Amino acid sequence: MTNTLKSSYQKTPYKLSGNGPRNISVLKEAFQNIDENLESDIYGNGAIIEDFQTKIAKILGKEEAVFFPSGTMAQQIALRIWADRKNNRQMAYHPLSHLEIHEQDGLKELQQINPVLLGTAERLLTIEDIKALQEPVSSVLLELPQREIGGQLPSFEELEEISAYCKEQGIALHLDGARLWEVMPFYEKSAEEICALFDSVYVSFYKGIGAIAGAILAGDADFVQEAKIWKRRYGGDLISLYPYILSADYYFDKRIGKMEGYYEAAKKLAERFNACDGVKTVPEVPVSNMFHVHFDKPINEIGPKLTEIHDETGVGISGYLQEKSEGVCSFEVSVGDGLDEIQEDVLHSLFEKLAKL
Amino acid sequence: MTNTLKSSYQKTPYKLSGNGPRNISVLKEAFQNIDENLESDIYGNGAIIEDFQTKIAKILGKEEAVFFPSGTMAQQIALRIWADRKNNRQMAYHPLSHLEIHEQDGLKELQQINPVLLGTAERLLTIEDIKALQEPVSSVLLELPQREIGGQLPSFEELEEISAYCKEQGIALHLDGARLWEVMPFYEKSAEEICALFDSVYVSFYKGIGAIAGAILAGDADFVQEAKIWKRRYGGDLISLYPYILSADYYFDKRIGKMEGYYEAAKKLAERFNACDGVKTVPEVPVSNMFHVHFDKPINEIGPKLTEIHDETGVGISGYLQEKSEGVCSFEVSVGDGLDEIQEDVLHSLFEKLAKL
Repeated sequence: MTNTLKSSYQKTPYKLSGNGPRNISVLKEAFQNIDENLESDIYGNGAIIEDFQTKIAKILGKEEAVFFPSGTMAQQIALRIWADRKNNRQMAYHPLSHLEIHEQDGLKELQQINPVLLGTAERLLTIEDIKALQEPVSSVLLELPQREIGGQLPSFEELEEISAYCKEQGIALHLDGARLWEVMPFYEKSAEEICALFDSVYVSFYKGIGAIAGAILAGDADFVQEAKIWKRRYGGDLISLYPYILSADYYFDKRIGKMEGYYEAAKKLAERFNACDGVKTVPEVPVSNMFHVHFDKPINEIGPKLTEIHDETGVGISGYLQEKSEGVCSFEVSVGDGLDEIQEDVLHSLFEKLAKL
Repeated sequence: MTNTLKSSYQKTPYKLSGNGPRNISVLKEAFQNIDENLESDIYGNGAIIEDFQTKIAKILGKEEAVFFPSGTMAQQIALRIWADRKNNRQMAYHPLSHLEIHEQDGLKELQQINPVLLGTAERLLTIEDIKALQEPVSSVLLELPQREIGGQLPSFEELEEISAYCKEQGIALHLDGARLWEVMPFYEKSAEEICALFDSVYVSFYKGIGAIAGAILAGDADFVQEAKIWKRRYGGDLISLYPYILSADYYFDKRIGKMEGYYEAAKKLAERFNACDGVKTVPEVPVSNMFHVHFDKPINEIGPKLTEIHDETGVGISGYLQEKSEGVCSFEVSVGDGLDEIQEDVLHSLFEKLAKL
């Protein structure tokens, strides 16, 4: 049945989420105007990689930046550098941090770093959780927005308090900014203003930005130099990273100005979900381009209905459903360019059908 | 002065080594006939990655294979799996193994694996070196050919002896096959026949094959499944690896049949170097597409001469020189498609000038 939902989703020509299909055209579009004589980056050197690092470092307001193939690699390395600086292998993050649930325990297995889980899984971590830590930690990782709970955010004031408290306590504050670009409209702050609260920052280029893959880790010059050594150790210092770098640069320029639009569209879309009986979004009012949709019914009831709506409307709602609790299932929405391509009357009919679930 | 040599080399339209410039055209050529609707691989799944893994596993005669962004990542993981299986963090390799000198001690820092150095730096390791090991090891890594000493090879008979001995002793034998494709003509063996002597195998796609980047790690099914978990831990399980996979596949098909030609051309080229006074190649007779060229004079004498020859002939000999010992310097040659583009009279004139050094 899950497979039916997935395959019906894959067949829909339109989707509520994303920037269009993840296919080879993503690469072809990014490269179509690039001179074929442009020289590859070579093991972290060369204009392609250096220029992009400088560009993003400046946008983030950090001294330097280094391009990584993945955020997994970048963030483990950031936390290891802080662990070494503070001579402490304990750090702290949210119980549903990407590092805790999606990385096969790489942080623990490769870096022997022991994370303390802050607060509880279903809510944001707070400054009180940090103040309540029973043992010293080298760093705290904050994910903005907290993806696994629908993309929730603390207020900017609380961020400032957390930052000040960590500084006072000698705790390094690291930003998991996988979706940093996507929260700038809510905070009404620049990337630089947000990043100024953090000692190190990771950002991604394949979520809202919609590039192929790739990440940037930014911080002080000596932090970044150390990160480059670890990047070599991890096998991330490829002879050529340009397929990711050039596409990251291309889609960054193409979509960075659209984040406000995605955010506004996400709020409207969430309203439409919340207007359906037995359906609610988390957060109720989105604070970025993303939110989760919860149904008051189990997967085996909702799955066939979504499949039906996919087939009838040609609009993909979701390719999967996750059991949240007994009788409650959910999926994630991330608004990108795709939503705009759906005709209003089609969307209207889709929500009429959803309202009848 | 090194910079002068490097920049004069970069300006030459022809080069003795390689498959042409490492520029964006390498990617454009590989993708020009690929359907833009072809779906990306997604976190290690999908036809693009699975088909290529199956293809290379079959060629190597192994049950399964997994594509990695880099050999650094693939090999550390292979050695960790063997260390776990044998419950022993000691392993052994050549003193000039890639892992020992080019990976910022990733094996030691990330995996807490202690390599024992077999034999001495200037020669191949032998079966006697392995038999003389004073302590048990979980694995032995053999690099074929041993790149840092010019690309030398043991006889196939010695390989068979090493393989049998390791099997008998319960030592896993891992192949650093960064240049495996390049040694098949010398051994007159298929990849499968060579790999049958090893428990696990890493191969690369950007040396002789000339793709953008990327590696394959192959072995038994359970070994490969475990390697995939470690790949996620390292941050190598990218959402999309297709820029590397599709280009690896394209250039593999384009160049795998050319290895014999590169090998024959390398032997002829080495003869020409050896005919010059004060110049010798290591090995004297190449056993692959590569060899090192040693000059009986120091860098500050040879550098300006090579720069002059670059400017005069338009053929790049080398962009760097390395001090081998007091008054002896060297560089590496790897024959690829580039050599064929140089007119015989130009090559003749180049070696006339070299002979006068």
